[in-house]
Amino acid sequence: MLSYVIVRGEIIVSKPLFNKIVIVGLGLMGASLGLAIKKNGLAGTTVGLVRRPQSVRLARRYQVVDQVTMNGPQAVADAELVVLAGPVSSTPKLLEGLLPFLPEGCLVTDVGSTKQEVTASMKRLLQSARRSGKRLTYIGSHPMAGSEKNGLAAAKASLYDQATCLIMLEKHEKQAHQRLKRFWEKVGCGTVLEVTPKQHDAITALASHLPHAVAVALTMLIKKKSKEHHQLMRVVSTGFKDTTRIAAGSPEMWVDIFLSNDREMVKTIDQLVGELQRLRKMIAQKQPKQLTAQLEAIRTFRLKVGRD
Amino acid sequence: MLSYVIVRGEIIVSKPLFNKIVIVGLGLMGASLGLAIKKNGLAGTTVGLVRRPQSVRLARRYQVVDQVTMNGPQAVADAELVVLAGPVSSTPKLLEGLLPFLPEGCLVTDVGSTKQEVTASMKRLLQSARRSGKRLTYIGSHPMAGSEKNGLAAAKASLYDQATCLIMLEKHEKQAHQRLKRFWEKVGCGTVLEVTPKQHDAITALASHLPHAVAVALTMLIKKKSKEHHQLMRVVSTGFKDTTRIAAGSPEMWVDIFLSNDREMVKTIDQLVGELQRLRKMIAQKQPKQLTAQLEAIRTFRLKVGRD
Repeated sequence: MLSYVIVRGEIIVSKPLFNKIVIVGLGLMGASLGLAIKKNGLAGTTVGLVRRPQSVRLARRYQVVDQVTMNGPQAVADAELVVLAGPVSSTPKLLEGLLPFLPEGCLVTDVGSTKQEVTASMKRLLQSARRSGKRLTYIGSHPMAGSEKNGLAAAKASLYDQATCLIMLEKHEKQAHQRLKRFWEKVGCGTVLEVTPKQHDAITALASHLPHAVAVALTMLIKKKSKEHHQLMRVVSTGFKDTTRIAAGSPEMWVDIFLSNDREMVKTIDQLVGELQRLRKMIAQKQPKQLTAQLEAIRTFRLKVGRD
Repeated sequence: MLSYVIVRGEIIVSKPLFNKIVIVGLGLMGASLGLAIKKNGLAGTTVGLVRRPQSVRLARRYQVVDQVTMNGPQAVADAELVVLAGPVSSTPKLLEGLLPFLPEGCLVTDVGSTKQEVTASMKRLLQSARRSGKRLTYIGSHPMAGSEKNGLAAAKASLYDQATCLIMLEKHEKQAHQRLKRFWEKVGCGTVLEVTPKQHDAITALASHLPHAVAVALTMLIKKKSKEHHQLMRVVSTGFKDTTRIAAGSPEMWVDIFLSNDREMVKTIDQLVGELQRLRKMIAQKQPKQLTAQLEAIRTFRLKVGRD
């Protein structure tokens, strides 16, 4: 399928990046991706594959994809790109179910928040397919976008705009790699970086999963203490609200992330406890000079990171 | 001094709440208070008392008070309300310096973020004044408003709008108490609550000081790790930025808060470490059911708290 763009009065005929893209799972991530693909003309056809009749109805009502179906084999026939957009823990199972029906040469990716565990499982599956003569490529993606809201109804074409997307280094798949990179850029991501699954999980534990765990732990404490101090909840400040906003995120998704990145989570929680204990010591021993130097260095660093 | 308001074509003459208000210190808090007093017509005259010539010039340029001076005795002559708006640690010293010049019956308050230590010091000073025959009243205030920006240039009349203000319970000062409560309401605060200094410091440690310490500790860790992982800073997500935004706050102010609320800080840091270790255990022992139940309870609770 071709698309037409008018540039300075001339009609430019452009081929979309992929003839057919299949998105498996139309939650916030999948449905928003469907809208972004449509908006940017990246596919001849986009098909959504879902499990429940209600999702079929919703996908049609919000028009997040061109076609929506509950039939896996039909959905993936002739697919050039398959994006698995379910929870991390279900990703290998989704691939396993579709494996016999994926066409030769198909590129498979996912949008999950952890990568070591899933990459190992996916590669095992693809090797078994290759043994039976079919060549498929898996390159993991992690577009770092989201919202406290979840589900198809919260989808928006702009979800990925200016987001950072991490894609997994695959030395032997240069062409597929280039194509996937271009795809995420055209979806709207501001930066596409290449990392190994190991680097990915260490970096995202620090930059995203640990902040979430901290927000949850702080809210756990405030929740307990609110029973003891009746006025506490009338007093929680912007500071607390900012710090814990993300604790309202989807429990299902975050349990998945924590458990599939368990080793890095345990490591970074221990490291954070170490930093808290350093601060505690400066306070308990009343060390204004050390504390001021520390807070000044942190303020300078944090200001450099930027506002949002 | 009287102020005039036109209501339905009639001129209403209203007496301001205080004939003369003195604000000691014109940083963000003091200067914003000056603007709010002016906007709401709460004083016959508002005088700013500052230490540096530069502050005199700035206060005049931004017109945050009616008069600004570096002369303490002149500033507080005939004052009905004196608001100490310097750092918490300097508050008793500010009062001590002004004590001989404060007129009989004057009401003194402050805007500091901790209350046990400061209340004890202030009461000692006022008792010494009373022994020499002068009756003064101190009731501590803590309007919970602020910004990452500091200094007079960042002042705005709306800083206190809808804020929660905590004022200290003073059983024997009913009239002054009522007047101070009305003052903060007219400044713009949405809620004025009465608590003891002890309750105050426990509640604010949880609701505000601990979230700040957490944001600082998390930024300390990310700062260290950014040297190890070069791509980390390109990946920090909205989650991290939200969680650590407050770490860019004024170091001077926060050292003051941490050290004047040291006992509660140490206690709440330990409690938070306990919650982090509970989460860590659920992750390390791969307990999806417990983790899901925990995250669901936290999500429900956090959603109830509201967005900001």
